[in-house]
Amino acid sequence: MADSNRFSVIYQIQADTEKEARRIGNELCIEQTAELPEDVIPDKVRHSFLGEIQQISSIPAGAFHVTVSFPVAETGGEVSQFLNLLNGNISLKRGIRILDLDWQPLTDLATGPRFGISGIRNLLEIPNRPLSCTALKPVGLNFAELADLSHRFAIGGIDLIKDDHGLSNQEPAPFVERVKAVTGAIRKASNKTGKKTAYFPNITADGIETWRRYEIAADLGADGVLIIPQITGLSTLHSIAKSHPPLPIMCHPAFSGSYVLDGQHGCTPAFYYGSLWRALGADAVIYPNAGGRFAFTKEECLEINGRCRSKDIPFKPIFPIPAGGIQRDTIKKWMELYGQDTIFLVGGSLYQHPNGLETAAREFQNQIEEDV
Amino acid sequence: MADSNRFSVIYQIQADTEKEARRIGNELCIEQTAELPEDVIPDKVRHSFLGEIQQISSIPAGAFHVTVSFPVAETGGEVSQFLNLLNGNISLKRGIRILDLDWQPLTDLATGPRFGISGIRNLLEIPNRPLSCTALKPVGLNFAELADLSHRFAIGGIDLIKDDHGLSNQEPAPFVERVKAVTGAIRKASNKTGKKTAYFPNITADGIETWRRYEIAADLGADGVLIIPQITGLSTLHSIAKSHPPLPIMCHPAFSGSYVLDGQHGCTPAFYYGSLWRALGADAVIYPNAGGRFAFTKEECLEINGRCRSKDIPFKPIFPIPAGGIQRDTIKKWMELYGQDTIFLVGGSLYQHPNGLETAAREFQNQIEEDV
Repeated sequence: MADSNRFSVIYQIQADTEKEARRIGNELCIEQTAELPEDVIPDKVRHSFLGEIQQISSIPAGAFHVTVSFPVAETGGEVSQFLNLLNGNISLKRGIRILDLDWQPLTDLATGPRFGISGIRNLLEIPNRPLSCTALKPVGLNFAELADLSHRFAIGGIDLIKDDHGLSNQEPAPFVERVKAVTGAIRKASNKTGKKTAYFPNITADGIETWRRYEIAADLGADGVLIIPQITGLSTLHSIAKSHPPLPIMCHPAFSGSYVLDGQHGCTPAFYYGSLWRALGADAVIYPNAGGRFAFTKEECLEINGRCRSKDIPFKPIFPIPAGGIQRDTIKKWMELYGQDTIFLVGGSLYQHPNGLETAAREFQNQIEEDV
Repeated sequence: MADSNRFSVIYQIQADTEKEARRIGNELCIEQTAELPEDVIPDKVRHSFLGEIQQISSIPAGAFHVTVSFPVAETGGEVSQFLNLLNGNISLKRGIRILDLDWQPLTDLATGPRFGISGIRNLLEIPNRPLSCTALKPVGLNFAELADLSHRFAIGGIDLIKDDHGLSNQEPAPFVERVKAVTGAIRKASNKTGKKTAYFPNITADGIETWRRYEIAADLGADGVLIIPQITGLSTLHSIAKSHPPLPIMCHPAFSGSYVLDGQHGCTPAFYYGSLWRALGADAVIYPNAGGRFAFTKEECLEINGRCRSKDIPFKPIFPIPAGGIQRDTIKKWMELYGQDTIFLVGGSLYQHPNGLETAAREFQNQIEEDV
């Protein structure tokens, strides 16, 4: 029944008084559902299909936390319609931000990650330390050159190599040739070192081509995939996370900044990356680390990490991947702060090592492994 | 060749001085492409794959217009990678907003709308007046009830009926049953009145299901479709706009507000709805009208209208659809302001008419037709 099965969302609403917050909250309850003036909402819709305020609490800074419940049935069992309920028309109003959501009633709709932290640890046979990760780049190199880079990183002992998210299917390194060349080069390195290095190519593409690349990646022996959910669409992430054979999914935040940078609008970074993307199937989420080129604070990063690993969310805990602004000589500091259930993504700083990528990778790896 | 074929984007960059704007612009040129420290970018990439500042001009309010060109080849012929070039990592930095883009070099990548204003006018046989539109709602009614509403609107003479974007495939009105019932009801009304009314069902769904609904809509005789591009993913919009048989596409802005509400970040509403969505195949775009429940100003609305119809963009002009806040008794004012190449979407105010939907629709239609 629509009204016996509801999920709740905590919105932060800018308002001077609780009365004002309640008025805005009530408007939200209708805007996201019936979207009609109150006097013409049919009775049966009013009783079973509107949002409902459950609780209001005041916080500092002229805002309130307003908890609103919606009928699960209103999603129609579809992620797309769920997103519309959560943040459809109200995305076009100022002063409303999504903080949290209770996924328990939605576990039929959103099925969560298939691997998560434990699954990726099993895959890499690394039970209890942070993981190292780097990116193949830049766009413009050909697939043989990228394969050579991957070989050197793998010889150095890196745990995980992903495509730069700017590598798609451009002429110098088309997807199929790149995945063949890189998986081959990494296998060769692993045969020499005896150490497993995983490869996650970027499958982000247009429309159904994303699924095709997923299948090709699996066929060619990739260990996982990289997706930009904000570009493929979030329901594509969710659908890929149910595709066969199962491969872990690393998510990249390109194109998503507008949702998380405004303190009074959109979503918190912790909710967006650590809760929503996790629920929709991400096994690991890249986010822009504090202290680098991007806008997040250390506190926001810690909140993302916490949400990725939280046991209060009814899906497998996932790896946070702080990236951007991590240098070879600051990695220790970040490891202490973020803890072992973290994948550290270091790109540019490895490429800058005066003694080459192999040495850079080995030094990075030594620091990562010392932590145990 | 990558460097003989470039497209340019105008970014608004917050900066105190031109020097500072140039520094941020140069960072953007690398962030969006090589994404490496400058000293380790390979020469061949530096010459052919980086963004390049073409021009900087100052504007009031501590900001600059910085025109940056990118190689067309860097898109790899894919909308997804084009979006990443345009607004990938930089979406995660504050103080950068997209104002405009020169589509001419990208007409192989983005193919634009198939119908546009002239195609929709041909379809409806209305050569030269504004069009009337209303929405079937609310979610929670069953398909027979929605079909009954559509019949009454069509008897009243409305030009175009779309699904509320909150109608997807929920139990009371599943997609197939709804499209069958509504197309049937509208056909019956048209047979009585002799006047054509078009129906655009909402095909927004998860992953490949969106394409399936497009095909079903076409098979069942729908005249066009409604899509929420920000939920399906923008490349899905573009791919649907190349599907067969051709049907006009109306786009809904749900979930997209975060991209357009911040005056110093994301995109201008005119660029996002009137230029980007048009390039990706929208034949008509709904936007939240000024003076209603949403945040846009009248000036922003006029800019969206202008961009939708602009001859400077190498794609067919498309219909702007102001919605929200248009009342039965204010429609005249908006018609004078926005002109005849506009679809006016009136929802709630028709449902509130004391004499019922048929009368409401007829009065609305009379006002629309008087304008000629």
